[in-house]
Amino acid sequence: MNATGGTTDETTGEQPGDEVPWGEVTPEAARKLLVAAVAAFAERGYHATTTRDIAGRAGMSPAALYIHYRTKEELLHRISRIGHDRALAVLSAAADRPGTPGERLADAVSSFVRWHAGRHDTARVVQYELDALSPEHRAEIVELRRSSDAVVRGILRDGVAAGEFDVPDVPGTTLAVLSLCIDVARWFNVRGRRTPEEVGELYADLVLRMVAARP
Amino acid sequence: MNATGGTTDETTGEQPGDEVPWGEVTPEAARKLLVAAVAAFAERGYHATTTRDIAGRAGMSPAALYIHYRTKEELLHRISRIGHDRALAVLSAAADRPGTPGERLADAVSSFVRWHAGRHDTARVVQYELDALSPEHRAEIVELRRSSDAVVRGILRDGVAAGEFDVPDVPGTTLAVLSLCIDVARWFNVRGRRTPEEVGELYADLVLRMVAARP
Repeated sequence: MNATGGTTDETTGEQPGDEVPWGEVTPEAARKLLVAAVAAFAERGYHATTTRDIAGRAGMSPAALYIHYRTKEELLHRISRIGHDRALAVLSAAADRPGTPGERLADAVSSFVRWHAGRHDTARVVQYELDALSPEHRAEIVELRRSSDAVVRGILRDGVAAGEFDVPDVPGTTLAVLSLCIDVARWFNVRGRRTPEEVGELYADLVLRMVAARP
Repeated sequence: MNATGGTTDETTGEQPGDEVPWGEVTPEAARKLLVAAVAAFAERGYHATTTRDIAGRAGMSPAALYIHYRTKEELLHRISRIGHDRALAVLSAAADRPGTPGERLADAVSSFVRWHAGRHDTARVVQYELDALSPEHRAEIVELRRSSDAVVRGILRDGVAAGEFDVPDVPGTTLAVLSLCIDVARWFNVRGRRTPEEVGELYADLVLRMVAARP
């Protein structure tokens, strides 16, 4: 498999014309297998899914799967790596935008929420199956998570330094902000009453209240 | 199996002397099987766990399991039902206590957080395996979740009516408050830096900020 970089839409972390899910995974057979793996893991869990199940969902033979992925864990790692890279890109893009700490925080929260709502199957797999990764892969992903954490912590510190936020516990509040956004993947329902955009706006407002932002 | 009511500690929703997990499940063999099922489901997921795995973990034969539970789904339903009953008891006890809406909300959040941190294995199974329940059982659990939701919504409405809270979107804020507490079960680590009590206090403060509580 090759991951092509491509241009990323900074708002959503998605590729231009991202109607093709996981468009960065090539060749096409590797992409189809990855899409099938996300669906299978989200539906039945990593441990209950076999490589045969995944190949079957993608309309391929198990032998065809092994051309692209040596193990089931390699598929999970690939999903988890791309998922975390995108989530970090979404957060970083918002954090790096010009604006006050409050504007950057609102941007970061609303785009992170939109990502978790729009990609809830991927996000669930990525969040709930961490323990199934090999120790090296897990360590790599934990590093990416630390980076996401650092992005949010940085905005909170900027806001406190500028006298715009009142945050007695910056690491604890960072944890709560990220947790609130991540859990959207658990409860979000495409047939529910709120769109990803509406949840993003609501949550940006609630997080600004958490940090007692002065406009 | 029989569930005995018993006296419940209103702070934690736990039975007095609750060193014995799931003490309300009798006889002892049924309790041991339920404890084994929680551990197995939390570790590998519901679909990857067989009744043979559960019986083996409890040191029993598959035949002994069927005396107490007809199906694997019956075990999941029992875990989910007790888990949701307790979570609702924890929230209701806090909501029904005398005090201002702010005090009741802080109590509800900190005890709900302590429950999700202290019982994170149970909470994960209960939260992530909802789709594996039969349609009738799922409907029953959804009803209990609506009740938990109504408890928090009631406190928010009381606070707004008393002029103590400023909450533009009561249902959305209720959703966010419960989501924040529930996600503690995903990230909480007994070897981490914060105790369940410390997370409970931090979150109670953050939620009071969300509702813009005036002391």
